[in-house]
Amino acid sequence: MNQDTQLHIPSYDDVVAAHSRIAPYIHRTPVLTSRFFDELTGANLFFKCENFQKAGAFKARGASNAVFGLSNAEAATGVATHSSGNHGLSLSYAAGRRGIPVTVVMPRTAPEAKKAAVRGYGGKVVECEPSTSSREAVFAEVVAKTGADFVHPYNDPRVIAGQATCSKELVEDVTDLDAVVAPIGGGGMISGSCLTLSTISPNTKIYAAEPKNADDAYRSFKSGHIIADDAPDTIADGLKVPLKDLTWHFVSNHVEDILLATEAEIIDAMYLAWQRMKIVIEPSSAVAIATILKNKDQFVGKRVGVILTGGNVDLKKLPWMNS
Amino acid sequence: MNQDTQLHIPSYDDVVAAHSRIAPYIHRTPVLTSRFFDELTGANLFFKCENFQKAGAFKARGASNAVFGLSNAEAATGVATHSSGNHGLSLSYAAGRRGIPVTVVMPRTAPEAKKAAVRGYGGKVVECEPSTSSREAVFAEVVAKTGADFVHPYNDPRVIAGQATCSKELVEDVTDLDAVVAPIGGGGMISGSCLTLSTISPNTKIYAAEPKNADDAYRSFKSGHIIADDAPDTIADGLKVPLKDLTWHFVSNHVEDILLATEAEIIDAMYLAWQRMKIVIEPSSAVAIATILKNKDQFVGKRVGVILTGGNVDLKKLPWMNS
Repeated sequence: MNQDTQLHIPSYDDVVAAHSRIAPYIHRTPVLTSRFFDELTGANLFFKCENFQKAGAFKARGASNAVFGLSNAEAATGVATHSSGNHGLSLSYAAGRRGIPVTVVMPRTAPEAKKAAVRGYGGKVVECEPSTSSREAVFAEVVAKTGADFVHPYNDPRVIAGQATCSKELVEDVTDLDAVVAPIGGGGMISGSCLTLSTISPNTKIYAAEPKNADDAYRSFKSGHIIADDAPDTIADGLKVPLKDLTWHFVSNHVEDILLATEAEIIDAMYLAWQRMKIVIEPSSAVAIATILKNKDQFVGKRVGVILTGGNVDLKKLPWMNS
Repeated sequence: MNQDTQLHIPSYDDVVAAHSRIAPYIHRTPVLTSRFFDELTGANLFFKCENFQKAGAFKARGASNAVFGLSNAEAATGVATHSSGNHGLSLSYAAGRRGIPVTVVMPRTAPEAKKAAVRGYGGKVVECEPSTSSREAVFAEVVAKTGADFVHPYNDPRVIAGQATCSKELVEDVTDLDAVVAPIGGGGMISGSCLTLSTISPNTKIYAAEPKNADDAYRSFKSGHIIADDAPDTIADGLKVPLKDLTWHFVSNHVEDILLATEAEIIDAMYLAWQRMKIVIEPSSAVAIATILKNKDQFVGKRVGVILTGGNVDLKKLPWMNS
């Protein structure tokens, strides 16, 4: 998709179509509850476990929707993206399932394990220098050479419609949610949640959870226009990227509030989830839990959906090992 | 229950009764599948996730059955056991839910975190020296003083009937299982699996998985009589205890084979489960996976239930951190 075209806001019909399209390639992930966290918060929490999703994160939804929505002619030249995280992995997964070429541009400094994971799904890794200018130059070259379709990690209506299927499942499985809390980075998951909930569950309030160390969405929300930071530093490495026009549309129109958590609060929440719920979640997921623990008054007595976005962590480098 | 009484073999009616009795106090745990492990083994694996069970392990089933099966008069004097592991925790959980006294005798050398966990559920910890003679003396004193009902960790028909509800749920959720693999220590889970499967799914073969470093059940099975080791050393600390008369009855009559795994194989299997399935399982659970990975020929093309027995680990001391 050419990013210069006019803003294309996906509709809920797109979400319904996406859900049928991707159903064979994604998990309908379970919703877990936890007496421990309910007692700790005074709320009824419903954890949507996208850490159990294909390729380990919700990003498999949007990537699969983009890949399987291509015509055969479009698909023949493959897809491409730049991402050193879950989106690159998920796009490789989806393209692998369809059997089409996929190229992921990654900084040469990205962990070898991440490059190996992309290759494991059949993706081709093209390295760039760890700078925006190098990434853009290398990526343009890849697209020019391959004719690949660019699937942006979040500022793409196909991707947002795909992520929106997560809240659709949640609402189908859990009735009468007062609120949904999901982490925010570029805003793909939050935008999808806004799209679904504002249509089929308009009384459910949407809260975005963001690391205090990468609070560009928070400051954008408060000031009324997109603010992008250069290189925020947080353990929640999926949440460092800024909002873009499409995701800003949803955030500015439908989000109730953006709540912040410190690095220590994120790590504590992650540890508690592993220890008490016996699930492996990545720091980005823990941000949502951390903001609820920190804002109990806002959620007490409420039925709250919590999107646990992914579970891709380096098990040999856990944050509580440093303390 | 007085351990001197004649061998009381629980029946499948006891299992059905146990399931109704404990349903309000336990989770019906989910059964997960994993494309990764299916491709790795060539089998269809169905993972029964008792790591998500109350108190973090299947032991909550047997403990709840014992506690909630007591008359009010019996319950008034409470329950007691000796255990530094999941059974002590589970008995405390169950007694706490019923609101009756519970005493757990633990070596003074047991980790403070385990003592704190028992107390967290409302249990009373009485310390003994780390020797069998001290444990027995201290425990006898506790029972004499309190009149508490002794709930043995596994050699108790109420406990076995409770553990048997796990395979009952598995068979209700997954049809046509060719085999079930579960770890073996004292044999409570395996005995429960034998009791259920031999009754309602007699074509399902039962395999016990044991650490090579604590292979007393394996040697018992091969020699035809109980062999007990003094102090086996394995990372699967729930599996160090020997078979007793009741569990030997089930193992000797219904188990197809006992398969062994080395410490390194156990750690590798545990790491793979965390990494690919995004679940926290303890080493004892990983023994079952390790034996399947090691004996692929035996399971290829088969539908295999795998009991993941628990998820209680010290997240700050993970075995792959030492390597």
